[in-house]
Amino acid sequence: MTNRSLDKKERILEAATRTFAEKGFFNAKISEIARQAEVADGTIYLYFKNKDDILIQIFEYMVERHLENIRQAVAKGGSPEEKIRMFVRHHFSTVEKFPKLVEVITIELRQSSKFMKEYVPKKFFNYLGIVSDLIIEGQASGVFREDADPEITKQALWGSLSEVTVLWLKTRKKRFDLQTCGEQIAELYIRGLRA
Amino acid sequence: MTNRSLDKKERILEAATRTFAEKGFFNAKISEIARQAEVADGTIYLYFKNKDDILIQIFEYMVERHLENIRQAVAKGGSPEEKIRMFVRHHFSTVEKFPKLVEVITIELRQSSKFMKEYVPKKFFNYLGIVSDLIIEGQASGVFREDADPEITKQALWGSLSEVTVLWLKTRKKRFDLQTCGEQIAELYIRGLRA
Repeated sequence: MTNRSLDKKERILEAATRTFAEKGFFNAKISEIARQAEVADGTIYLYFKNKDDILIQIFEYMVERHLENIRQAVAKGGSPEEKIRMFVRHHFSTVEKFPKLVEVITIELRQSSKFMKEYVPKKFFNYLGIVSDLIIEGQASGVFREDADPEITKQALWGSLSEVTVLWLKTRKKRFDLQTCGEQIAELYIRGLRA
Repeated sequence: MTNRSLDKKERILEAATRTFAEKGFFNAKISEIARQAEVADGTIYLYFKNKDDILIQIFEYMVERHLENIRQAVAKGGSPEEKIRMFVRHHFSTVEKFPKLVEVITIELRQSSKFMKEYVPKKFFNYLGIVSDLIIEGQASGVFREDADPEITKQALWGSLSEVTVLWLKTRKKRFDLQTCGEQIAELYIRGLRA
């Protein structure tokens, strides 16, 4: 893919993110996305199969970028406990930095039944895999309980992060201070895992 | 409302639950729900405004029934720790008992943007309020940490329960044993909250 077409694709993804956030996934029209991206309607179909496909590619783009950042952030932590705290903090700081994008991938994405029922989010599994790896690391070094299941704990933590994120987005960011949420959730899981 | 019309309404709610679970919220047709409930299409509009309204009433009906059961189950627990374990266990045993209903209210409900953006689930707040009350009770009796925020912790726990539930439903119940999930999650939060 040439630089120019990569630009165009990114422009479409950015315009689609804004459009989905403003109008919702169902009400958003391809023609509106094209207008915002300043491309012809037909151009969109050179890069994407349909609206679901745009949404899924927004998700993949976000996870990919986020994945690299979080790997770097976690690497700075010392102990497995500290790294889990980093992971949680980083999640919420991303939410604060990109609220529209996060709104699209947490609220609108669930409205794509293609995504909910068929899509296998491999990159997202890699992202969550960071957590189970940290738990296994902590168990190996004796700081975390042997009887904590890394897979279930990883899903439980993800549930906590995404639930609080959705609530924050739905209540127009007023109900909770996200940094406080991050410290609270990190503390719960670190203590909950401690040997 | 007479007994007979209450029957009819319940029959429609049950038929709608089956239809939503089988076809998905978007593909489900009012006429199909009417056929399954053995009522005329028009009868449905005597009780419900539209498809979103049926879905929301399924949710309310479920929460109401569940709320009473869980209050009784939690009342049997002794310490606040034990009561939190009861709450978690009860959640997953309900999921195991009513998988179709739970599928509709966890997966399909999110596809109703009316529900996601406008509906204020007061009864559901009462249900979650059980958790924050238990945390406050535990803090008062000195078993839980004073610095744990009951509101954030309640949302975090709810996120864990619903995330694992969705995963269990999506993976056709094979990936996790729900009872193990319940014990794992209860243990995490009880230890995480402990003073």
